[in-house]
Amino acid sequence: MDKILLYGGKKAEYLVKFEPGRKIQTHLGVLTLPEKIEFGKRLETHLGKSFYVLFPTTREISMRVKRTTTIIYPKDAGYMIVETGIGAGSKVLETGTGSGALTIILATIVGDEGKVYTFERREEFFNNAIKNVKDAGLDHRVEFHHRDPVVEGFNIEPVDAAFIDVPEPWTLVEPVYKVLKPGHVWVSLSPTIEQVQKTHEALKDVGFIRLKCVEILEREMLVRPGKTRPRERMVSHTGYLTFAWNIKKE
Amino acid sequence: MDKILLYGGKKAEYLVKFEPGRKIQTHLGVLTLPEKIEFGKRLETHLGKSFYVLFPTTREISMRVKRTTTIIYPKDAGYMIVETGIGAGSKVLETGTGSGALTIILATIVGDEGKVYTFERREEFFNNAIKNVKDAGLDHRVEFHHRDPVVEGFNIEPVDAAFIDVPEPWTLVEPVYKVLKPGHVWVSLSPTIEQVQKTHEALKDVGFIRLKCVEILEREMLVRPGKTRPRERMVSHTGYLTFAWNIKKE
Amino acid sequence: MDKILLYGGKKAEYLVKFEPGRKIQTHLGVLTLPEKIEFGKRLETHLGKSFYVLFPTTREISMRVKRTTTIIYPKDAGYMIVETGIGAGSKVLETGTGSGALTIILATIVGDEGKVYTFERREEFFNNAIKNVKDAGLDHRVEFHHRDPVVEGFNIEPVDAAFIDVPEPWTLVEPVYKVLKPGHVWVSLSPTIEQVQKTHEALKDVGFIRLKCVEILEREMLVRPGKTRPRERMVSHTGYLTFAWNIKKE
Amino acid sequence: MDKILLYGGKKAEYLVKFEPGRKIQTHLGVLTLPEKIEFGKRLETHLGKSFYVLFPTTREISMRVKRTTTIIYPKDAGYMIVETGIGAGSKVLETGTGSGALTIILATIVGDEGKVYTFERREEFFNNAIKNVKDAGLDHRVEFHHRDPVVEGFNIEPVDAAFIDVPEPWTLVEPVYKVLKPGHVWVSLSPTIEQVQKTHEALKDVGFIRLKCVEILEREMLVRPGKTRPRERMVSHTGYLTFAWNIKKE
Repeated sequence: MDKILLYGGKKAEYLVKFEPGRKIQTHLGVLTLPEKIEFGKRLETHLGKSFYVLFPTTREISMRVKRTTTIIYPKDAGYMIVETGIGAGSKVLETGTGSGALTIILATIVGDEGKVYTFERREEFFNNAIKNVKDAGLDHRVEFHHRDPVVEGFNIEPVDAAFIDVPEPWTLVEPVYKVLKPGHVWVSLSPTIEQVQKTHEALKDVGFIRLKCVEILEREMLVRPGKTRPRERMVSHTGYLTFAWNIKKE
Repeated sequence: MDKILLYGGKKAEYLVKFEPGRKIQTHLGVLTLPEKIEFGKRLETHLGKSFYVLFPTTREISMRVKRTTTIIYPKDAGYMIVETGIGAGSKVLETGTGSGALTIILATIVGDEGKVYTFERREEFFNNAIKNVKDAGLDHRVEFHHRDPVVEGFNIEPVDAAFIDVPEPWTLVEPVYKVLKPGHVWVSLSPTIEQVQKTHEALKDVGFIRLKCVEILEREMLVRPGKTRPRERMVSHTGYLTFAWNIKKE
Repeated sequence: MDKILLYGGKKAEYLVKFEPGRKIQTHLGVLTLPEKIEFGKRLETHLGKSFYVLFPTTREISMRVKRTTTIIYPKDAGYMIVETGIGAGSKVLETGTGSGALTIILATIVGDEGKVYTFERREEFFNNAIKNVKDAGLDHRVEFHHRDPVVEGFNIEPVDAAFIDVPEPWTLVEPVYKVLKPGHVWVSLSPTIEQVQKTHEALKDVGFIRLKCVEILEREMLVRPGKTRPRERMVSHTGYLTFAWNIKKE
Repeated sequence: MDKILLYGGKKAEYLVKFEPGRKIQTHLGVLTLPEKIEFGKRLETHLGKSFYVLFPTTREISMRVKRTTTIIYPKDAGYMIVETGIGAGSKVLETGTGSGALTIILATIVGDEGKVYTFERREEFFNNAIKNVKDAGLDHRVEFHHRDPVVEGFNIEPVDAAFIDVPEPWTLVEPVYKVLKPGHVWVSLSPTIEQVQKTHEALKDVGFIRLKCVEILEREMLVRPGKTRPRERMVSHTGYLTFAWNIKKE
């Protein structure tokens, strides 16, 4: 990947594609990128302001995709990763692709030996997501499907985990059951209680077990000499995460 | 890995090493394991109670290690993964190893192409952690060091991220600075505010930038027909997470 | 009131009725109460351990009633007081009385010029609650009704606020509408989402406006030199509070 | 009091002083107030839009004072009331007065038989607070003192509780100890950890016991048919509340 995070202070952060000698307009002046990426290096704008070249973490890249939809936050994605047990080499299913923020996170985790199968039925989201994942240099780990799995099914190899972020997750329980390896984990994210309730019902109907629903909250502490305190405002809701294990029918 | 999670209901969960024909004592009767692992399959105890063979996710394995120390929770570990940007192939530093819960999570993420360098100075923790990681079948991705990096340094190849969970993280800022790739991320977890304050001070002194401190809260929802509500008790604190980026000295 | 709180350390707290010369058995020895209540005074057990005579706050009294039901917590009660706007002199309706914990809090607030009308249909709760409120010395501010207002209505003077804590608050919307002064506030506490949803629907049907639903969380900080941190476990749910204003029908 | 809350929808709320026939400019048209206050009554603007005359609760009045300072929120004030045990007839000390938001809440609670002694050293705050409390019709229950109690002491009758909201609460521990009845409760609100730590130290030095520190969080639920969920943003910090009981020196 050839992205870098340019950091010139709290309100001067730029995630950019690296090109030798590229000029970057910032509100602290014009930066000229060096001949090669040197992480940690200090650069200077034509106004003498400092910027540092930082490694673009998954968080930075996923939070800064061009958004055509709401995106899954790192606090939720991180929890989903550990809870589903995916890692290097995993094959995972994702639907819908949305803006590709979670696709990027999953592709980082599964690596070149793994694969992310992602499905998106709305064309404008689909094209934007492909662009976002390509920009992140991760498209070789992702298989993009532009179709509605509720209608047409998934038709992919069995997967190690299913990540569901659609308005009606309950419509996908049956199709997911067919491609999710037995004994493996479904996770869906839904903003409303009613979505969670319908999803739980559908999961139990189809035979999923060990259902669990959590919400993850992230609260920032401002640590400053003599003035340490939590930040005064926070995101208090993104969505509820529903986890379930499928089992073999007898 | 040859672990399986046997699930016979909320209060009947067993994470066990699979061996063909092995007898497992449960409080719902004796289970006889089949000839090979078949995830999702139903088994029956000699009392006719059902158990299901489930995929042992990272969460299950890490939360069920034999503990000689407090461990890092999945809610925190997941967030740290996305925030540091590690994935398949990453080289990461961890200290202290503790009970190996985070070691297992990190080894799952970095895969066979990556490496976890983990340091623990207390012998009783060290030996228990090695056993836990071996039991999880992940020891080939981990390099165990039984030494005190404050005194002796790390002496490893440059790493993509540093995960610090020791009582005095501030003593490790200098040693970590030497092995963490420039522009990459430090994360430490500390239960108390005073630890966080000292760590922030040390990080700023050595030249780390873009410091951030958060806490992650996990709250369970009980989703039951007509009786949906949050669980009445929760873990309200594990630790504060401090993130920082290092930069090159000029 | 003649209650005192005896404090001999975190695990040695006793809320007792004061009687001159009374002997109190504690696990730190026997205390002999003095001739009159002197708040702040140190007493000594026969084993030489110190206890202090503290003012028994509303919190202590309400949290230590003999419980035959779950009770409303101070965090919720305090919020309800400010939100409904009651104070000295207010006339308030409460149903059900439960164990009388909220009755005690309300009676403390409304004073001798005010009145708490409280209704409880279950006899075993009713008798226990009366005893609890009497023990707190507040029964002269309370009118106890042992009847089911859903069936029989309230038949009391118009009230300034209505505090509803019953399993089916929606059944009380009509009866409350008739005794709650126009333009004044209903508040109900319910543990589950489904109760909240049905209550909101009923409130809107009857013509209540400006509905609001909140939950209040209380998190303790342990402030100890060099080891300041949140407590590790907390009560994460008591109930959702629903507020609504009634209006005159035309 | 002659305030009314005019409610014409979520974004059309006006807290106004009632005067017969008064014209109120709203963004939904001009309202003409009726001859007398009739709570619950519907009014109509000259554009035919509905407004309702609602009882102005303590919350509405305190949150809508003219602010020259940050104010204490109802969630915190309510908790402080129950925890200190004040009610109708209590004598309470408050410092600093700030914008008078808490003064209004306390005066509502203590009633005509009680008294709020409030101290503010900064003249611009003092005058604004007096105006706010007068506007709320509660000034007869309040004794305003324009002086610095750290320097000059309080010189008032013994009080049942002390509410402290100043930047340096630790400087007030000694003066408060002299006027707070023995065995009664101190509560202070401070935004930062360092303030809390210094206050705890001072309280313990002077001989206060049973110290407790909490934070109160308020989270809104949006209850809408088929779309119930927590609000997406919330106030995540106002301040830490420190409680302590004083005892008699021997």
